[in-house]
Amino acid sequence: MKRPLNVVVSAMVALYLVLAVCTPAGAQTDPLPSWNDGPAKQAILEFVRVTTDKASPKFVEPEARIAVFDQDGTTWVEQPMYTQVMFALHRVGVLAEKDPKLKEVEPFKTVLSGDRAAMAKLTMQDLEKILAVTHTGMTVEVFQTIVQDWIAKAKHPRFQRPFTELVYQPMLEVMQHMRASGYKTYFVTGGGQDFVRVYAEKVYGVPPEQVVGTAADTKFGYDKSGKAILTKVPKLLLLDDKLGKPVGIHLMIGRRPVATFGNSAGDQQMLEYTQAGDGARLMVLVHHDDDKREYAYGAKSKIGTFPDSLMAEAQKRGWIVISMKNDWKRIFAFE
Amino acid sequence: MKRPLNVVVSAMVALYLVLAVCTPAGAQTDPLPSWNDGPAKQAILEFVRVTTDKASPKFVEPEARIAVFDQDGTTWVEQPMYTQVMFALHRVGVLAEKDPKLKEVEPFKTVLSGDRAAMAKLTMQDLEKILAVTHTGMTVEVFQTIVQDWIAKAKHPRFQRPFTELVYQPMLEVMQHMRASGYKTYFVTGGGQDFVRVYAEKVYGVPPEQVVGTAADTKFGYDKSGKAILTKVPKLLLLDDKLGKPVGIHLMIGRRPVATFGNSAGDQQMLEYTQAGDGARLMVLVHHDDDKREYAYGAKSKIGTFPDSLMAEAQKRGWIVISMKNDWKRIFAFE
Repeated sequence: MKRPLNVVVSAMVALYLVLAVCTPAGAQTDPLPSWNDGPAKQAILEFVRVTTDKASPKFVEPEARIAVFDQDGTTWVEQPMYTQVMFALHRVGVLAEKDPKLKEVEPFKTVLSGDRAAMAKLTMQDLEKILAVTHTGMTVEVFQTIVQDWIAKAKHPRFQRPFTELVYQPMLEVMQHMRASGYKTYFVTGGGQDFVRVYAEKVYGVPPEQVVGTAADTKFGYDKSGKAILTKVPKLLLLDDKLGKPVGIHLMIGRRPVATFGNSAGDQQMLEYTQAGDGARLMVLVHHDDDKREYAYGAKSKIGTFPDSLMAEAQKRGWIVISMKNDWKRIFAFE
Repeated sequence: MKRPLNVVVSAMVALYLVLAVCTPAGAQTDPLPSWNDGPAKQAILEFVRVTTDKASPKFVEPEARIAVFDQDGTTWVEQPMYTQVMFALHRVGVLAEKDPKLKEVEPFKTVLSGDRAAMAKLTMQDLEKILAVTHTGMTVEVFQTIVQDWIAKAKHPRFQRPFTELVYQPMLEVMQHMRASGYKTYFVTGGGQDFVRVYAEKVYGVPPEQVVGTAADTKFGYDKSGKAILTKVPKLLLLDDKLGKPVGIHLMIGRRPVATFGNSAGDQQMLEYTQAGDGARLMVLVHHDDDKREYAYGAKSKIGTFPDSLMAEAQKRGWIVISMKNDWKRIFAFE
């Protein structure tokens, strides 16, 4: 015991280094800086706190920490039309350049006319034909490359920025905060699974295997050199919307989520399914009420439908409704 | 600079503590102790080494480290019949007790007779009827409980042990070693996804969301109290066998695996699909050639088919073939 002080100093230095190396940084800072203080922010923070505190009766085991997010309208802009529909319309143009016969056939003729009023009258069957031509008939890798190339260049008509910049910063913060708290974050989107997978990891930190979406079938075969390939075919495997969302969750995740974020009637059933489980639950709806910074959808909007009945359901069941206008200090990272 | 030695000691103590807290234990021990030294063991160890060594040209980024495993016959015993078929036959008996009319209707009458010769003649349609009755018509949670209860008690006819003890210890070690090396381990099984999910996490450390299997559809609805439920319905969503395995991999994982383990013709296409990717690849087949400790399947076995054509393919393509007899020092943990 010659140098007791030094022993203490050694131990303190050691402890400091251990903490510096092993502790996540920024544990004291606000994980949701783009949110205004209010009931929505508080509910999210409180939910994460109690479900990750071993001493809390609402503690959730790490393996059960599944949080699912709708994509269009919940984590990025979906107006004036879904990004994937813009992609499909663009592809019709590209394909018609290669195969001019397409220009004479409906519904492609209407799409190429650029006549908005005529396009608004396209039927579900027309849309299926457009999706078949633009989304199938190629290998899964070729499709991936096509989407990658398009999304790197395409710009939103109003914001004149890449779609991947039109991500809601407050929702990115929620996803990051939940992951830092041991949650696995999934997309459960009505959009195409293979489409969303192209950018989900880079833009949101959600890997391909955590993207549940509307999925077409693929067909196993071989290319000319004998290499095994998968070709996208026009046969629907999973329509991941409304009643289909809980089905997709069970198929692809196999656990009932404990937290679910949506923004429209298409998300109602997965919110109900989430709430019906035992223990702590978090159900959240993003409400588009900010036409200055983004969009304000009326109850009758065709995209991102938020009818009065959904608002009534949210109130009855105690779901959190985020007001983009009041709850979000900033909406986009570029603001 | 009064006490340079103490500074060095402090730094060393600190370094020691950092290493003790932050380094995984046992980095020097053999990760595959149940394997005999030989080409199969060496190939697996070498693959993991080069794909996780940043200095190696075969390095694989952590997010791309996907390893998939067939289940029946690759990670546990599948003879004299698949565990899930034994479960289904048992359930027919339970259901016939509740509903004696079933005893008079085919194919249930034959199943209940216990007449092995007659049962061997059941058609695919008969099997579908048996699966519909035993695997659908209940919520996903009720099915889970039924499987849990059965598998806790049921015993293998030859080994007289629970099926969950008839796991191949050498394969468990491979799965653990790969996970410790940053791989995500998945099951890609012809068996029922909901069936395998019940025990995969506890027995193999594979969580439900990493089980890809043959899947029936589910239907969203509400129970009498108004709670959201999913009911299993007799409609096939995914037949996860042969050509269907790469399809299931793309649907549920969305990335091409870099390592794949199988044991039968049902796994051939996913091995081909794995091999067709770029960079380091590992394709492995378990060959059942040990009738003393387990089973030796001839090339014409109905379960776990390993025809001569598969062996020829393995040789042509350079796949690793594990001889259970020669490569595995012990097969089961209880040995």
